[in-house]
Amino acid sequence: MPRVSSKVDINGELVALGAAIRLHRKGIGISQEELADLASIDRSHMGKIERGERNVSLLNVLRIVHALDTTLAKLSNSAGL
Amino acid sequence: MPRVSSKVDINGELVALGAAIRLHRKGIGISQEELADLASIDRSHMGKIERGERNVSLLNVLRIVHALDTTLAKLSNSAGL
Repeated sequence: MPRVSSKVDINGELVALGAAIRLHRKGIGISQEELADLASIDRSHMGKIERGERNVSLLNVLRIVHALDTTLAKLSNSAGL
Repeated sequence: MPRVSSKVDINGELVALGAAIRLHRKGIGISQEELADLASIDRSHMGKIERGERNVSLLNVLRIVHALDTTLAKLSNSAGL
């Protein structure tokens, strides 16, 4: 795996997780802003997370998982990770 | 879920993931130092990750997952996350 800085523009795995978050969010019918608020994450940060543009911290991933009422295992599985 | 700073001392979910990493590492018979080197993570940082003392980034979790030759879904599942 290539070394990457903490601020990532393109990374397939972050993109895959972000896409899985977006898919799950749409599946439960909430907006990106609503998810951000539920997860106590800045709204502009949430957009970058969904696009895989940020090397999100595990705690923020877990906050998102809880806000989506799913598990990290299920979200990872749907992201192919 | 309570708000936490990016530098976490105690958090049940980080502790659970760290414990799962340690268990998996021991299962394949490598040392913490070897895992750190395989994952390109600083050795002192790896100890803190295994003890759940750091809010590890997703990319570092993924590096560890690859070094352990497992998947994020499997590791999360074994951590109960």
